[in-house]
Amino acid sequence: MTHIERQSPRPAMPERFDEEFDIIVAGAGGVGLAAALFARWLGNNVLVLEKADAPGGTTQKAAFWYWVPNNEPMRALGIEDRREDCLRYMARLSRPEQYDPDHPRFGMSEWEYEAYEAIYDNASVATELLANKGALEYRHCAAVPDYWAEIPEDKAPTGRVLLPKDACETMSDGGKVAIRTMLAAAARDGIGVRTAHRVQRVVQDARGRVIGVVATRADGGHIALKARKGVIFATGGFTHNVEMRKNHLSAPVLGGCAARTNEGDFVHIGAAVGAELRNMNYAWMCPIVLEKALQQDPGLIGTFSPSGDSMIYVDKNGRRVTNEKLAYNESAQAFFQWDPAKCEYPNLVLIAVWDRRSQEHSASDEYGRFIVPPGADAAHVISGRTLEELAAAIGARMAQYSSVIGGMRTSEDFAANLRATIARFNGFARAGKDLDFRRGERPVELLFNGPTAATPSAPNPTMYPISDEGPYYAALLTGGNLDTKGGPATNARGQVVDRMGEPIPGLYGAGNCVASASARAYWAGGATLGPFLAFAYLAANAAHREPVN
Amino acid sequence: MTHIERQSPRPAMPERFDEEFDIIVAGAGGVGLAAALFARWLGNNVLVLEKADAPGGTTQKAAFWYWVPNNEPMRALGIEDRREDCLRYMARLSRPEQYDPDHPRFGMSEWEYEAYEAIYDNASVATELLANKGALEYRHCAAVPDYWAEIPEDKAPTGRVLLPKDACETMSDGGKVAIRTMLAAAARDGIGVRTAHRVQRVVQDARGRVIGVVATRADGGHIALKARKGVIFATGGFTHNVEMRKNHLSAPVLGGCAARTNEGDFVHIGAAVGAELRNMNYAWMCPIVLEKALQQDPGLIGTFSPSGDSMIYVDKNGRRVTNEKLAYNESAQAFFQWDPAKCEYPNLVLIAVWDRRSQEHSASDEYGRFIVPPGADAAHVISGRTLEELAAAIGARMAQYSSVIGGMRTSEDFAANLRATIARFNGFARAGKDLDFRRGERPVELLFNGPTAATPSAPNPTMYPISDEGPYYAALLTGGNLDTKGGPATNARGQVVDRMGEPIPGLYGAGNCVASASARAYWAGGATLGPFLAFAYLAANAAHREPVN
Repeated sequence: MTHIERQSPRPAMPERFDEEFDIIVAGAGGVGLAAALFARWLGNNVLVLEKADAPGGTTQKAAFWYWVPNNEPMRALGIEDRREDCLRYMARLSRPEQYDPDHPRFGMSEWEYEAYEAIYDNASVATELLANKGALEYRHCAAVPDYWAEIPEDKAPTGRVLLPKDACETMSDGGKVAIRTMLAAAARDGIGVRTAHRVQRVVQDARGRVIGVVATRADGGHIALKARKGVIFATGGFTHNVEMRKNHLSAPVLGGCAARTNEGDFVHIGAAVGAELRNMNYAWMCPIVLEKALQQDPGLIGTFSPSGDSMIYVDKNGRRVTNEKLAYNESAQAFFQWDPAKCEYPNLVLIAVWDRRSQEHSASDEYGRFIVPPGADAAHVISGRTLEELAAAIGARMAQYSSVIGGMRTSEDFAANLRATIARFNGFARAGKDLDFRRGERPVELLFNGPTAATPSAPNPTMYPISDEGPYYAALLTGGNLDTKGGPATNARGQVVDRMGEPIPGLYGAGNCVASASARAYWAGGATLGPFLAFAYLAANAAHREPVN
Repeated sequence: MTHIERQSPRPAMPERFDEEFDIIVAGAGGVGLAAALFARWLGNNVLVLEKADAPGGTTQKAAFWYWVPNNEPMRALGIEDRREDCLRYMARLSRPEQYDPDHPRFGMSEWEYEAYEAIYDNASVATELLANKGALEYRHCAAVPDYWAEIPEDKAPTGRVLLPKDACETMSDGGKVAIRTMLAAAARDGIGVRTAHRVQRVVQDARGRVIGVVATRADGGHIALKARKGVIFATGGFTHNVEMRKNHLSAPVLGGCAARTNEGDFVHIGAAVGAELRNMNYAWMCPIVLEKALQQDPGLIGTFSPSGDSMIYVDKNGRRVTNEKLAYNESAQAFFQWDPAKCEYPNLVLIAVWDRRSQEHSASDEYGRFIVPPGADAAHVISGRTLEELAAAIGARMAQYSSVIGGMRTSEDFAANLRATIARFNGFARAGKDLDFRRGERPVELLFNGPTAATPSAPNPTMYPISDEGPYYAALLTGGNLDTKGGPATNARGQVVDRMGEPIPGLYGAGNCVASASARAYWAGGATLGPFLAFAYLAANAAHREPVN
C-alpha cells in the first residue's frame, strides 16, 4: 500500500493552480462518490481525490445496509413512518440522558435536532436519485428490525433498511456492489477519480473562503487544485490514528475495521481553518478480534454477528460478564467496564469459547465472525481437546499479548471457573432463559445470531448447551470501532461551521470525517450510510449553489 | 457577576497596541498567578488578565493540597522517592490499559512520559521558589496517603502532599490562603492584575508568532496588548461549556465545581492558531450534589468527602451499586454505568441516604459534604420520619428533575428495596466487612471518611448500622467534574504545539486549560496543583528565554 506522509494542515495560498474544477471531493468511499455524483448531476465539473491506491474506503468492506426513514418502499407498502416519530426515536437513543418526550426538540440541541430533520427529509430523496440514475439501485429489506425495535419510541420497527440490489442473499457484500455501481456511474458521467493523492490542506482566499486544495502524491510531488465552488470532504474518521483515539474517544479502543487510511485527516485540516469539533468522544463500535486489531490487519471486519449458540464470552477469570448477542455497538461497551478499586479495565479482552457443534454449524467468513470455516484464516482460533487444554492454550495466547493489554493474563482458577460457567450457561440453554444476562430476548439479538444447527434444537435459538466433550475452541476479543463519529461540525446543509457557529465558505463535509449528531446511538443497521447519503446530497446541493470564484 | 460575551477566537493583527509587556498571563487563578510570579522574578514586565470580577479562579474554591514528588521535606526526612519509581506510578495509573512495566517509557507515549519527567523534575523546584519568595509557604502533610497508596507501584505512599502553611487544621481552605499570599506577592513585586478582561484571541505576526492578545471588557471595549516575549494561558477547563462537555467528555456530566468562568476559552483560542487538542475525553471527576449542579450554583464544591458511617448510596431501585467511600475521581464513575439493553444510564442519579447518627456526627460544611450542619444551605436535603416517608419524598424530588435526567424516577418497589438494602448493609456494618463492595478497605477511603461519632463504634470505621428509627435523610447525587483535563497540547517546556507537534512561538499554557498527560488518573490529593506549578514554572522560564519582538 502506498504511504503518503501527512504534512502541515495549515491552509495555503499557492502562487498558481495546476488545474481547476467546480467541486472537488476528498475521499472516494461510498460517501465521497455519492457526493461527487450528486454534484455532477447538477452540471458541475467534479474531481474526486483518494489517498489510497484504490477507491472504496471503508464502504468497500461494509455490508452497506442503509437506513432510510420513510423510504419509498415503505410508503408503497403503506408502512407509516411519521416525521415526529422518527425524530423522537433518534433523540431517545442518541442522548438518553437528555431525552425529554415533552420538549419541542425532545431535549436535543438545535444542531442535533436539525441533523435528524435533515436525515428524515433527505435520505429517501438522495436514495431515490441514486437509484433512478442507475448509480445505486436497491432492494427493500422489509423484515429487518431497527436495533431498538422493541422500545415504545420505535413506531416503524421494520422497513427502514435498504440494500444494494445485487448484494448476495446473506446481505454481506453490499459495499462492494455499491462501490462498483457508483464508480461505473462516475465513469459514465465524466467524474475523474484520482487515487494515491493525499489532500494535505485547503486553499483559503484572503476573505477566508475555501477555494481549493493542495494534495501530495506518493512520489512527493504537489498538486494545487482550484475548486470554483467548493470542496467536500468525505475522508473517514480517525480509527487508525492511535493518538487521536487515546486523546478523544471515551473508551480504550485498540483498533477497528475502518479503511486503514482513516487517520483523522479532516480533523487536522478542518481544525486548521477554524472548524468547531464535535462528538469527538463517540464511535460506531463493535467487538473485534484482538489479534487482527493488534496486527493492523487491513482485512479486519467487526464482529457484527457473534454466531454460535453453544458459544459464550468469558473474562480473564473464566466468568460470563455480558450478553454475547447484544447488537455490536452495545456489545462493545462490555469490554470497557472500569474497576475503580483496582484501576484496571478487567474486560479489555474477553474470550469467546465454543464447541464442536458451533464450529460445525455456525462457521462463516461473513460479518466478521470469529468462528470460521475450514480454509479461512484461523490464526486467531485457539483450540484444545479438553477444557483444561483449552484453558491452558488461552492463557498462553493471552500472555503473548500481555504487554499491550495492560498486563492482562488469565487467572489461576480460570479453568475451574470456566467449567462452572459452562454448567450454569448450559442450564440456561436447556431452560431457554438466561437468568444472568437475558440473552436472546430482543429482536436485534436474533437478527445477528448467525447460522446454527437445525437439530437438535433448544428453546432459545441463541443458546444451546456447550458439549461435555471436546474439542473446544476460543478467540480473544476486544472492543473496537467500525469508525469514529467525531470531527468538524457541519450544519444541516453540510457546510462546515467555525467556532462561532458560522459556515466556513466553500468547505463541506459528510460521512465519518465530520461530527455525527447520533452521539452514542446506533439506531439501526445502516444508520451510518443512510444518513451519510442524505448529507452527501445536501452538501453537493449547497456547494452547487455557491457563487463561482 | 459580570458577563463578557465570547467573540471569534480567530487571531487578529490590530493596527496598534494599547500597551505592551514582556509576558502576558491570561487567568488569575493559582496557576496563572504562579506563572506570573515566576516570570516576574526573572525580571520581566508582566500583566495578568482575568475574565471574572475577582482573581482566584477555581483555586479560590480548592483545598489546595499540592502533590510534589520528592519534595524538600521528604528529602529532609529521608523518605526515598526515586524518579523511576514515581514515573512508574504515574504511568501505571494514567493509562492502565497500556502500562508495561518492562517498556522504557512504561508503555506511555513520548509526550506523556516527558510530561511525567517534567513534573518530577520541576514541581519541587517551583514549590521551593514560591516558598522562598514568600508567595506560597507550605507545610508538609507527611501522613496523607496517595490515592493508590496500596498498589505495589507506589514506593512512596505518603509524604508527597504539601499544603499552604496557614491553611486551617482541617486542610480545606488552602486555596483561599494561596490566592491571598500569591496576590500579595504579585502586588509587592509589581505585577498588574486586571479583572473583568476577557481574552478573546491572540495576536499573531506574519510568521505565526504570538505577540499579544485582544481582550474585551464588560462595557464592550477592546484592548490590544503586546507581549514582547510571549503569552501564557491559564484560563481553566471547559466544565461550564455544555456543548463541549457533551461533545468531548467520555461521560454524561451535568456540571462541576470549577469556577463558573471555566468555559473552554483556550480550546477555542488555541485551536484557532492551530494547536493540537489532547486528552479532551477526561476530567478530574467527583460526585456532586445534583441540584446544585442543575442550578449552576457558583458555590458548588465536589463531594470530596462522602461523610457518614451510617450512610449509603442507592440507585433508583433502592439498591446499593457502589462503594460509597471510593476516592472521588473513581466514585464518580459509578454514575456513568451504561445499560446496553435498556439504552440508559441507570445510575445517572444516585441517592445518598443517612440517619440521625450521621446527621448529628458527620455534618460539615467542608469538602462538599452533603450532610450539612444546622445553618448551612440544606435545600438539597430530603427528609422523612420513616423510611417510607423518606422514599416518597425522594420520589417526589427526583420527579421534579425528571425532564433533565433522562426521565429517571424511583421505582415502585424503591421503599421495599431500600429497607432490604439497609438490612443487608447493617449486617456488613456489624461484621465490619462489606461483602458487596469492600467499603473501607483502602487507605484513601479512610482519608475521606470524614467526622463520625466516637461511640458507639463498629469494627469498620466507615460503616455503622443505619438506625431502625427515623428521622432519615437523603440527597440526590450525580457524577461531575472538578474541571476538565483536555485542551491544547503543550510540550515539556509549556509551549503549545501545533498539529505537526511543532511549538507555536510565543504561546504557552498551564493548568486545566491545556491537556494533562494524566489521562484518566488522579494520582493523589493535589495531583492537579502540584504538577500545574511545575508547568507554570517551565512556561515562565521558556517564555522568559524567548527573543524580544
